[in-house]
Amino acid sequence: MSAAPAPQVQTLFDVFRQIKDLEVASAVLQWDQETMMPDGGAAGRGRVLATLTGLKHDLLTSSRFSDAIDGCVELAAGDPTVAAQVREAQRRRDHACKVPSELAQQLAQAESHGLVAWQRARKADDFGLFRNELGKLIDLVKQKASALAAGGDPYDSLLDLFDPGCKSAELTPLFAGLRAELAPLVQAVADCGHSVDESVARGDFPAEQQQAFGEMVAKQMGFDFNCGRLDLAAHPFCTSFYPQDVRLTWRYALDDFRPALFGIMHEAGHGLYEQGLPAHMQGTPAGDAVGMGVHESQSRMWENLVGRSKAFWEWALPKFKQHFPGSNSLTVEQLYPCLHTVKPSFIRVEADEATYNLHVAARYEIEKLIFSGKVEVDDLPELWNQTYFELLGIRPQSHADGILQDIHWSMGAFGYFPSYTLGNLINSQLFEAAKRDLPEMESQFSRGEFQPLLDWLRGKVHAHGSQYLSNELVIRATGEPMSSSAFLRHIQEVTNEVYGIDAHRV
Amino acid sequence: MSAAPAPQVQTLFDVFRQIKDLEVASAVLQWDQETMMPDGGAAGRGRVLATLTGLKHDLLTSSRFSDAIDGCVELAAGDPTVAAQVREAQRRRDHACKVPSELAQQLAQAESHGLVAWQRARKADDFGLFRNELGKLIDLVKQKASALAAGGDPYDSLLDLFDPGCKSAELTPLFAGLRAELAPLVQAVADCGHSVDESVARGDFPAEQQQAFGEMVAKQMGFDFNCGRLDLAAHPFCTSFYPQDVRLTWRYALDDFRPALFGIMHEAGHGLYEQGLPAHMQGTPAGDAVGMGVHESQSRMWENLVGRSKAFWEWALPKFKQHFPGSNSLTVEQLYPCLHTVKPSFIRVEADEATYNLHVAARYEIEKLIFSGKVEVDDLPELWNQTYFELLGIRPQSHADGILQDIHWSMGAFGYFPSYTLGNLINSQLFEAAKRDLPEMESQFSRGEFQPLLDWLRGKVHAHGSQYLSNELVIRATGEPMSSSAFLRHIQEVTNEVYGIDAHRV
Repeated sequence: MSAAPAPQVQTLFDVFRQIKDLEVASAVLQWDQETMMPDGGAAGRGRVLATLTGLKHDLLTSSRFSDAIDGCVELAAGDPTVAAQVREAQRRRDHACKVPSELAQQLAQAESHGLVAWQRARKADDFGLFRNELGKLIDLVKQKASALAAGGDPYDSLLDLFDPGCKSAELTPLFAGLRAELAPLVQAVADCGHSVDESVARGDFPAEQQQAFGEMVAKQMGFDFNCGRLDLAAHPFCTSFYPQDVRLTWRYALDDFRPALFGIMHEAGHGLYEQGLPAHMQGTPAGDAVGMGVHESQSRMWENLVGRSKAFWEWALPKFKQHFPGSNSLTVEQLYPCLHTVKPSFIRVEADEATYNLHVAARYEIEKLIFSGKVEVDDLPELWNQTYFELLGIRPQSHADGILQDIHWSMGAFGYFPSYTLGNLINSQLFEAAKRDLPEMESQFSRGEFQPLLDWLRGKVHAHGSQYLSNELVIRATGEPMSSSAFLRHIQEVTNEVYGIDAHRV
Repeated sequence: MSAAPAPQVQTLFDVFRQIKDLEVASAVLQWDQETMMPDGGAAGRGRVLATLTGLKHDLLTSSRFSDAIDGCVELAAGDPTVAAQVREAQRRRDHACKVPSELAQQLAQAESHGLVAWQRARKADDFGLFRNELGKLIDLVKQKASALAAGGDPYDSLLDLFDPGCKSAELTPLFAGLRAELAPLVQAVADCGHSVDESVARGDFPAEQQQAFGEMVAKQMGFDFNCGRLDLAAHPFCTSFYPQDVRLTWRYALDDFRPALFGIMHEAGHGLYEQGLPAHMQGTPAGDAVGMGVHESQSRMWENLVGRSKAFWEWALPKFKQHFPGSNSLTVEQLYPCLHTVKPSFIRVEADEATYNLHVAARYEIEKLIFSGKVEVDDLPELWNQTYFELLGIRPQSHADGILQDIHWSMGAFGYFPSYTLGNLINSQLFEAAKRDLPEMESQFSRGEFQPLLDWLRGKVHAHGSQYLSNELVIRATGEPMSSSAFLRHIQEVTNEVYGIDAHRV
């Protein structure tokens, strides 16, 4: 692909370019909407996004695009890089052709309105301010899912949007297996009588200093701020317009440095993937990241396996103390348990590694009920609280701590959550493989040297765009198909160290 | 127009909506480019803007749009509001049909690259970093001007883009007349031996306090920050996505409060016009502001006729002292001359009212030479400096103080500058009319009451969108055609007060 593409492939790229540019324009407008836009801008913004979506839909369903794809099919049979381009182009076209243009535009507008309503509702801790928009979004996404499924399972068709090939027939036993391992572990921690002293992670952390420290860490990880930036947002995210312009967002607590730091490392992990996508495939159908599961493996690796490691803190703690002089007596040994507490909590993005997948399992079960028509929008807050009680043994006392905590549904992103769990599993599996290939990796971390790991990820993951689907990418990088064993090994090891629990006896 | 439009008019609006939404998307991307975008984003941004421009061009030149226009022509004959919609729709279509799509896209990309190159060149004070992009932009804008002129005068066709109907045959004598009045006035000030003590306007003004004061003033003027925001930019501007989302930008000097304050009042003046455009015409062809001359009359009125008045400072000075305690002993009498110094200077946006139009005259002469093919890009810096010497008697010592000071050419906006002078003239003429209608206006200012003036502007100017062209709008608002007499009266009055010069004897 580094050589000039064949003429018919170039034609496909040229036609696709407009589609991609409209996606980028929408991404800029959405970033602005979540970070910069004044309240008054919401209604107009929704309309403009709907227009861009409509124009993109027209291009995806045009005969010009289909002809350009068809022109490459023969060549694709003998050239896997062309085959990947054709596969990705076809996937987008097929999705678009199945969803009527009007529905796509209605969705774009409902998502924009939903986002604004959710922001207000979350701030006011009032589900009623979001109820109508959520109901509308569910209706429209149900229509979309049915259209995409074409007789198959509607919820599977949504899963496939975020992780191509992902099916609930595989997810259901996967979540059951995780629950079977994790629920007793969480219970054993609760029963063991040992609780972690988290007071050392609390204190007075001015926002400016938190930002400076987080940016310093992100830079050290390899995130290039000449090709990116960091801004506040109600619900942190990473968006990429192209590898040269990647936007991270963050939020903070003034009395606990962890949400901001691990949030920034998480988003910077996403950002490193985006900045590392192959330049020669930029703007082509297969030039994007492969799926949300692999994407999440990158963010969670930097957040959890790097950022919560002792080796990382051997390097980071002296810098931390420079930013927060109040922490001068803190040691890595004191800090480490605070980064690995196991405790049921309400907020997914702040959950520990052991309980995190139970948060996702809750959302998975609720989404399946939504898309099988077994729950009404008005019953969702109670269903949410009840499911949390069943899976985590706790019941949220407010909507902000419950159903209103996540941005996803307000943007119409149903079927997205399971990719977080896939990300956790892939994350651990990749990290074990990286440690095998880089035996010095941990001591490198302790000197602030993250480039070797980044280079490994660049070569094994980032450089491929969506040349390979997730499963194949994992096998190529680790030698094995995706499974939960590396993740469970990691959790058991950490829990044993912090709580003295031998997981094999749980 | 407040009633539901006729079906064929609604069809025109529906077709136009996509065009307008693409314009808004481009405006958001351009705002981001000038305020937020990391350096690395430039190349990709240019491409996306070019794609949006190309898609807009396709829509403007589509038979669908032309058919929608044609469908309204008959109705327009008997309905002036429909006639204005048809006129504005036709104007856009005709411009687009004359400029080939490829040229429009090349221009969009060159403008995006030009902006980035100009920013770097200005920072480095090195014309060489901008030379190639400027040369390319001039070539492309010449092609565009020839295409638009269709045998007529190419430069006139550019003027018409910013102020419909504006022609150099009228501008040349207008500038000659202004120069004949202003040059002797400036000379008389230089000769009078009196110089203003500007030290009272200088000091130590922290950026945060300047922003807080500027925002407070903008709010008091009536600018609605729920429907807008203020950010830093290298070259301040105002952009509007729609009346509910209007973005102001500013810059500051730490040792002089004037550039920031008057810059913010200027942009807020633009912003008030945008926020006051008629809601029922929003997103329609005639729903936009009428032209850059009238737009500039709004910004310059708030900046100069309100912001530099004694009445304004009677209200503002106590607040100013709260923001800048170092200014506690300042009086309106000390301050007033500092707001009306007459002194040739290098930077247009910081020029006083008396010399400002000479800055514009310089650009007008240079642009005419560019578009008559009488100057090469490499000769422009020297031509700039020479023209300044002839008109203002001073010669810039750096490119940043000379040809690199303005953003306009880097965005392909040739033919824009004269609208600043038109704005100055319309500004004074409108203000005299407002004073006749609102005899209490000045004493209202001294109590911080700007709503009566804003209401007057809303009714006479803002509420009309582009229902009337500039000349008609001015006649309707003031009873007289546009002329320079009100402006000259104002300058003479102020100069007499500050320097004791009786302009009638100059």
